[in-house]
Amino acid sequence: MSRRCVLLAVLACGMAAWALSPAAASEDVWLVDGGLVVAMDEAGTIIPGGAVAVRGNRIEAVGPAADLARRFPGARCLDASGRIIMPGLINAHTHVPMTLFRGVADDLDLTGFLYGRIFPLEARFVDEEFVRWGTRLACLELLRGGVTTFVDMYYFEDAIAEEAARCGMRAVVGESLIDFPAPDNKTWADALAYMERFLVRWRGHPLITPAVAPHATYTVSADHLREAHALAAKHDVPMLMHLAEARYEVEFVREKHGKGPVEYVASLGILDDRVVAAHMIFPSPAEIALLAEHKVGVAHCPQSNMKGASGVAPVPALLAAGVAVGLGTDGAASNNDLSLWEEMDTAAKLHKVTSGDPKVLNARTALAMATRLGAKAVGLQNVIGSLEAGKRADLILVRTDGLHQIPHYDPYSLLVYSTKASDVDTVIIDGKVVMLAGRVLTVSEAAVRERVAAYQERIAASLEPRK
Amino acid sequence: MSRRCVLLAVLACGMAAWALSPAAASEDVWLVDGGLVVAMDEAGTIIPGGAVAVRGNRIEAVGPAADLARRFPGARCLDASGRIIMPGLINAHTHVPMTLFRGVADDLDLTGFLYGRIFPLEARFVDEEFVRWGTRLACLELLRGGVTTFVDMYYFEDAIAEEAARCGMRAVVGESLIDFPAPDNKTWADALAYMERFLVRWRGHPLITPAVAPHATYTVSADHLREAHALAAKHDVPMLMHLAEARYEVEFVREKHGKGPVEYVASLGILDDRVVAAHMIFPSPAEIALLAEHKVGVAHCPQSNMKGASGVAPVPALLAAGVAVGLGTDGAASNNDLSLWEEMDTAAKLHKVTSGDPKVLNARTALAMATRLGAKAVGLQNVIGSLEAGKRADLILVRTDGLHQIPHYDPYSLLVYSTKASDVDTVIIDGKVVMLAGRVLTVSEAAVRERVAAYQERIAASLEPRK
Repeated sequence: MSRRCVLLAVLACGMAAWALSPAAASEDVWLVDGGLVVAMDEAGTIIPGGAVAVRGNRIEAVGPAADLARRFPGARCLDASGRIIMPGLINAHTHVPMTLFRGVADDLDLTGFLYGRIFPLEARFVDEEFVRWGTRLACLELLRGGVTTFVDMYYFEDAIAEEAARCGMRAVVGESLIDFPAPDNKTWADALAYMERFLVRWRGHPLITPAVAPHATYTVSADHLREAHALAAKHDVPMLMHLAEARYEVEFVREKHGKGPVEYVASLGILDDRVVAAHMIFPSPAEIALLAEHKVGVAHCPQSNMKGASGVAPVPALLAAGVAVGLGTDGAASNNDLSLWEEMDTAAKLHKVTSGDPKVLNARTALAMATRLGAKAVGLQNVIGSLEAGKRADLILVRTDGLHQIPHYDPYSLLVYSTKASDVDTVIIDGKVVMLAGRVLTVSEAAVRERVAAYQERIAASLEPRK
Repeated sequence: MSRRCVLLAVLACGMAAWALSPAAASEDVWLVDGGLVVAMDEAGTIIPGGAVAVRGNRIEAVGPAADLARRFPGARCLDASGRIIMPGLINAHTHVPMTLFRGVADDLDLTGFLYGRIFPLEARFVDEEFVRWGTRLACLELLRGGVTTFVDMYYFEDAIAEEAARCGMRAVVGESLIDFPAPDNKTWADALAYMERFLVRWRGHPLITPAVAPHATYTVSADHLREAHALAAKHDVPMLMHLAEARYEVEFVREKHGKGPVEYVASLGILDDRVVAAHMIFPSPAEIALLAEHKVGVAHCPQSNMKGASGVAPVPALLAAGVAVGLGTDGAASNNDLSLWEEMDTAAKLHKVTSGDPKVLNARTALAMATRLGAKAVGLQNVIGSLEAGKRADLILVRTDGLHQIPHYDPYSLLVYSTKASDVDTVIIDGKVVMLAGRVLTVSEAAVRERVAAYQERIAASLEPRK
């Protein structure tokens, strides 16, 4: 067909490549066409030989390729034949700079992990420069694996937001608040001042949603939790926190306040739909009802929770109660890669074996957790998470011809149980091509590799005396 | 260095490529050199800048590259710089032809899986031709992911052995015995006659170990189990079976024989070191002691057991008792790919979370299960499973520079928690290069793809009326 065109070679030239899209002018419609559309909308729309029309940073239409070709005659197009066209994946909980600590503290108990390794390493190495390079490495890995949005909690989130935006990634960036000196802000007053500036700076950005991120119930006082929530409400941004993530937390809160962690947060009057609660391993049935009632989003991190021997979140019960549950990888020091494909696969399998019911969480639900439900969990349900007209154009093309993928009989099974991060071919975020045929167009991979190698050498050297 | 040489381009020409090795004559020593050797021997030998010397189909020496270069002056070499040199992985339990049924029966209960899907599909599609093409596809996927040995239980194992050997793979091929008509043999007498011919035919083959594979305690009578074992003993081959794999099996055996499945098999006088027991989810403590006492090998299939909601095998207890536990993927209808990397990762994580102890199964042990312990579990401990002089030259080169792998601080963590099947670069089996830089040299991938597509179409068409 004459309207098929190879117009993207220019993207490889490297100069501001991410700003380019196949459209000639920014409001021209262009098509991603000829693939199997897996829309991940509520109806479960699947369109063989389908297409997505993109205008600016939004999805203009989704439908059969032939229909969209008639509707948008002469539109430029990106060929997706032999590929699945689906919404980009959402990593609902991570700590991106910690990629530089990948695998540095494995097979340890919590004390050995945190106090023996992570806290001393953070004290020694984490500064703004570290955060920038760790974020760049994470963005490369995330994009390579088809993640278009990540939700982060760490320090120097201003720098993380800058790097994510520069990489062309969508991100909810939560600056951490904690009741002891952090790598970026040494006092609560400093942290609040930083937070105000940070929330104002990123307001209305097309890719970045700033957020307030009080660390947890056992590291932030009741007054400070209320202050954090008031700030989130004032600026109308999400509030990210770890919640019901550890046995010692449940014991700590129960001893101090006589209730479970979710009940405790509710009693502070701050449990609402802006809260994104990471891990949520130990809610009681009453607390699950509270989460549903208050429309709290949950970020489930199955692999991290397994590796840390933390426990198994009651995901089938949360979903049955109507709680929006997304999927997160957690940081690479906890669970050593950032593949959402493995989290989907693991989530489905883990809940089957722990419930004894192989139907309890099927492939379609696992995929929804990484897309539509994940978007809802983090408050972006009107923006991303499915291929529907009016949403932002965050989509990925996935190869389906890997030796580990053929033959295939069902697209959800194929995507959840056989597909790997390395099968992602192309990534489009906010209407812009950010990765094409496996090559990221926004970050210098060579520069990142060079700096990562330098950090590896310094960090490894610091570990040796303790071995 | 002048002795470094690119001599393998000729392998790409395709004609009988697998028979070639970098050595000029079959008994010349050649080196795989310059990589990080992770030997997986008992001592845990690790050699940066290491090398493996290969003579014929055996490992001649393992050591620092400089030492081996002095010891074997003028030897040809395959550059492994930037890569890990390690023993090939052992898939201790699978059903290779079932790759053609990949994902055809997901998210179903056992009845829906077996009786609703798998048994009718097997009755309709499984013949010798099906088995050959399914095996070829599986061999491609296994090689791509660094598996050098697989242990199979299915039908038409003569054809599976032929295909594995043609692909240059090592395999323990167990012809199934079952008390109802099978796709290849309709009666017990036919099956025994087939088995005798099969065991004689493959005796002494450099790559193939034939085996007797009575299906399970609930599908093969006591007399037939004894006959199967007698045949295995007569020919001195392994006996593969599913054992303690399902709750209904435990209940069935307990009701019928008043004991657990392992105790029952022991009571038949056939529990010994030639038995490889797949799954082993439900042994009692007394049965674990029996397994250790009788030196039974176990094939643990964590992902398949999770996906089927079967249960969690007591692997830490089995290992503590001294039982050799290997890792298997099971067939691709149960657990939809054949990646041993994911089984290692999952095994470590699953046992941490179910025991509540993050130290209970570390990365080094998980890797041992896929190599040295797996070899021991299947009776090949003197042949494969580690890089040691005298063992067969089954080794793989693994890239370590993936964006999901950097930085790294420990080779075992890197291999188990970050590395994927797609990171395997080169595969050498029995001294021959079978995959080079990601390209398999023994099977026509194009021909396999064409036939897989045809099977997919026929099988998918047969499913539609039931949807």
